[in-house]
Parts: sequence; C-alpha cells; structure tokens
Amino acid sequence: MQPFDSLGLRHDGRTLWVLDQTQLPDAEVWLDGSDPMAMVALIQRLAVRGAPLIGVAAAASLATFAHRGASATEYGAACAALGAARPTAVNLMWAMDRMKGAADPVAEAEAIFAEDVRLCEGMAEHGAALIQDGEGLLTHCNTGGLATAGIGTALGVIRRAHEQGKRLQVYADETRPLLQGGRLTAWELGKLGIPSTLITDSMAALLLRDGKVQRVLVGSDRVAANGDFANKVGTYGLAVQARFHGIPFHPVAPFSTVDLACPDGAAIPIELRDPAEVRGYESLRWAPEAMPAWNPAFDVTPVDLVTSLVLDRGVLTRDELRAGALSQACG
Amino acid sequence: MQPFDSLGLRHDGRTLWVLDQTQLPDAEVWLDGSDPMAMVALIQRLAVRGAPLIGVAAAASLATFAHRGASATEYGAACAALGAARPTAVNLMWAMDRMKGAADPVAEAEAIFAEDVRLCEGMAEHGAALIQDGEGLLTHCNTGGLATAGIGTALGVIRRAHEQGKRLQVYADETRPLLQGGRLTAWELGKLGIPSTLITDSMAALLLRDGKVQRVLVGSDRVAANGDFANKVGTYGLAVQARFHGIPFHPVAPFSTVDLACPDGAAIPIELRDPAEVRGYESLRWAPEAMPAWNPAFDVTPVDLVTSLVLDRGVLTRDELRAGALSQACG
Repeated sequence: MQPFDSLGLRHDGRTLWVLDQTQLPDAEVWLDGSDPMAMVALIQRLAVRGAPLIGVAAAASLATFAHRGASATEYGAACAALGAARPTAVNLMWAMDRMKGAADPVAEAEAIFAEDVRLCEGMAEHGAALIQDGEGLLTHCNTGGLATAGIGTALGVIRRAHEQGKRLQVYADETRPLLQGGRLTAWELGKLGIPSTLITDSMAALLLRDGKVQRVLVGSDRVAANGDFANKVGTYGLAVQARFHGIPFHPVAPFSTVDLACPDGAAIPIELRDPAEVRGYESLRWAPEAMPAWNPAFDVTPVDLVTSLVLDRGVLTRDELRAGALSQACG
Repeated sequence: MQPFDSLGLRHDGRTLWVLDQTQLPDAEVWLDGSDPMAMVALIQRLAVRGAPLIGVAAAASLATFAHRGASATEYGAACAALGAARPTAVNLMWAMDRMKGAADPVAEAEAIFAEDVRLCEGMAEHGAALIQDGEGLLTHCNTGGLATAGIGTALGVIRRAHEQGKRLQVYADETRPLLQGGRLTAWELGKLGIPSTLITDSMAALLLRDGKVQRVLVGSDRVAANGDFANKVGTYGLAVQARFHGIPFHPVAPFSTVDLACPDGAAIPIELRDPAEVRGYESLRWAPEAMPAWNPAFDVTPVDLVTSLVLDRGVLTRDELRAGALSQACG
C-alpha cells in the first residue's frame, strides 16, 4: 500500500488516516478512515471534504478494506455506501465507479490518488498562465491541498502563480456556514506564505467595486455538460458580482469533476444540510433555536457567468463551453 | 423623566437602562447607561446599536447626566464624546447637535425619543404600501425595535405589512461578522410571529435567482444628498444582486439619517473595526490568529441601485433622488 501522502490523507501500511478538517486550524487530529462505514461518517460530517479528496479518500478506504480481506459482497456494499455519502460532488461517484470494477482495488486506489496529484499540476499550469503579476485574487471555500490529493484546484492555481514569482494579494472569504475559507484556506495560505486577507462573505462585493480584485477563482463539485457548475454555496453570488463589476471569473476543476451525463445545472442534485449549521457554529449557537433556517450546501452557477473553465487539460472559454467543448475535452 | 420605553432602552426615573444587544438572544441583560462615558463604551462595543437608537440613547444619557447636575463644561464634553463614538451613522451627530443647544436637555431628549417613534410610524405606513400580499422579503442586519425607539425602519415596514394581513415570507440574512440578523432580527421576527427563515449572507443570491424574494428592504446609517447611502457591510452586495435579478431594492430611513451636508457616498466616513471580529465570533476564534483580516463595518450603495427610498415623509424614487428631491424633502 502506497502512503497516499497528502495534506489531508496518509497510509502507514496498515491504517488509512485522515486529518479531521473540522478541527483545523486549532488542532491537527488524525482519524482512522480504514473502515468504509467510518469513512462515510467522516465524509458526511466534513472531517474529509473537497470534491476531489472525498473521491480519493473513499477509494483509499475501499482499498484498505479489500487489503484486509473484505468479501466481494462486503466490498460491493461499501462501494454503494461511499458513493451515496454526499450527493453533489460527482468525483465520489466517479471514483466508486472505478473501484467497483477494479481487478486490484489497491492498485486502482493508488492510481486514482496519483492521477489526482497530476490533475492538480495540470490545472495549476493552465490556470497560473492566466494570472498577471500584481493581481488581487478572490477565492471561496477551500480548494487547496486539503481538498485534493495534490496542490489543489483554484488554490493550486494561486499557489503556482505565487511560485512563479508573481506578486499577488489573495482575498479569502470565510465561507459560512462551515467556514472552510476562514479555517482551511487561511491556514493553507499562511503555510504557503502567500500575502492574503480574510473577509466575510458579505464584503466581497465591496472589494470588487473598489478595484482590489482582478480575478475570481473557485473550485467545483460538479460541472454539467453545458458548462454550468455546482460549487459551495455563495459561488453563484460571487459570479454575479464578478459579472456586474467586469471581473474575470474562473471555476477550476479536473476532468473527474465533469459529469457529461448531467446536461445542465438544473440536473445537479443539491445537498441540503442541517439548519442548525446556520444558527451557529460548532458549540456556539447565536440564533434563536426556534428560528427556521435554510441550508443548501451548494449552488449552481450558469455557464453564462463563467469567463473560462480551467481544466487539467486546458482552459475552455465560455463560448467554447457553450459550443460543447466539454464533451470533446472530457468525453 | 419619561420612561423612554422601547425594546432596547428604558428609564426608571433615576437610571437609564440599555438592553445589552451583544447578549441577545440568549440573555436579556440591562446595563446602566446613565453616565455618558459609559454610554460611549456601550455604543462602541455595540451593546447599543442601530443608527436611530444610538442617537436616541446618547440623548437620553445626556439628559440623565444633566438631570443629575452635570456642569455646563461636563455636559459639553459629554456631547462631544458621544458625538464621536462611532463615525458612520449620522443620527448620533444629529442628536448631539440638538442636545448641545438645548435649553432643557431632559425635554429635548424626550422630544427626540418621541419623534423617533413617530418617524418609525411614518416609514412603516409609506413602506408597507409598497408591499403586496404574498411577497417574499429579504432584509439585512437589524432594523427593528432594537434599532430605534419605535417599531423600526426596514423591519418596521415589514411588521406593518404583516399587521395589515399581508401574507409574507421574510428571509433574514445573518449579517456577519456581528450577526445582528441571526441574533437580533431572528429574535424580533420570532416575537412578532412573522413567518421567516434565516440564511447565511452567501445564500441571498440563490434566493433571488430562485424567485423566492420579491423585494429587498434595508436600513441606513447615513443617506447622502444625492441618494447614495451607507449601511451595514453587505448591503451593497445585496443591491447588486437585486439589480441583476430585477428585484426592487429599498433603503428605509428617517429624515434624521439624511445628511444633506454629505454630497455623495464617497464623503461618508466608513468605520473600520477590529479584524478579530472577522476571525471568529465572541469567545470562538476559528481562523488562524496570524491571518490578516479586513473589517469595514459599512459599505456605500450608490443611488443608481436604489429603486426607491422609504422616508418617514414619503417615498422617493431613484429618479426623484437623482433630481435632488432629498434637499426638498429634508432641507
């Protein structure tokens, strides 16, 4: 068994460990994700998160399960349970489809992991070429090393541009309700030494109006065949702000996030989570217990608001996406 | 001394009490605001907040101070300190200007209080006439009984429409970083029995796109002569979303919030608060301590994005505002 060595995942030869992202940045606690049903729970409570990473982690859990001698029936049931753990990110279903038919589950999981690392490199190269020296960049949620097996999607692009010596100012929005921007992206940016500033989600429009941001880069949980895409709730609002202020807006995703079976955004299932997440955070509840709340975890941004999509295999403009280029690129 | 009987303020004949809004909705704790310097601190840490209420509360504190025998010098210094407690809401300066020249400070504070109650009634009547049966309404921050001496500005309009029997669905955004929507507006809506749902700030765009919201109503901390206005950060983003989705957008404010000496929004000073407010909430800090953060408390929305301004004395459309109607209405 390979070590699956990444920011949020590792294997010691016997046990698959996942970094509990709900405890970041205050504590780095590693949990046992070897058992697929334990992994389902870790994915559902977002201890493991990020569209690419949950696919990779689920595959690694299955491989460990098989390595420990699971029967074909047990393995099949675990595949099904993992594939249904969360509904929106298609990477999970994509990885489970691969694992289901794999002759050697360990080799297949290792291949999925290695491929995700390479896909991140591809996105980083293609995306960083768009970024000019001196730009202010706005990003949402967490799309870095914690969200993938490699350097990330949108945050990987930013990291590569920084490594290329471009002077950047990154603005990370906190991404309520689960604060992946405030907790995870802020933590990664600090480790990487990239100049950055944290804002609340509601401050993004003001930054764009004030000319502080020249480009918006976000991840994706599923890209439909027509270029519409789902991502963490708040993404659609940023896309509208970017359009209104004339700022380029780029989703960044590997081909494993593209779902050609999904004709458009309306066909992407959106996970509704516990309203309690909106009434507070962790142990702190600040809204009245009786207050109804709405908690969609994702929203869909139409291709009309996309400047270009950064894939591992190149960049597709809005016009190319509208003309069906995704089918050719990822078919 | 009148009782200054309102949701966030009261006087027992000897002591001026203010409800500590930072502890709502979990605890209703009343603090002594009789001393003007104590009131300055209460206003700065947002125990007392809401543009109209801080003007009223500052006046009531000064009246109590005078009633207890403050010298003219002490009184003048207290006026100056209160007037400078927070920079953006003009109601505070307006109230201090009145108190400074008052022959009878107690009577003047009582008049300011009574007037604010009446102004709320005026806004409620004019604003509620805009609202149709069955509308979904989105509001930001807290603009109700906790923000004024009366029933509120934007939330007062909603309350009046509800009292008129119109079926409404109110969406309150939580309003990070200090969560006045999630804590205070949710608390008021629950007390009033108005059907309502809490969202994070980042979900507003999705609601508008989905046709759930027919009107956006917000308060204001200062309206410039040309109709540009400052309000709690996030308001500008909502105005952009409303414009993009073709939804009417209304600031609601009394004439005491209008600053004809301010030609346009660029002249409104914006309070920058402690970045720590963005890194967490109360005792909970979730972002890395070392992460820089930006914390403007307000933003400015240009008159171009305003459908109409609801004043205590009527409703002014964007075109009327652009044609200088505010000078006539409030001059």
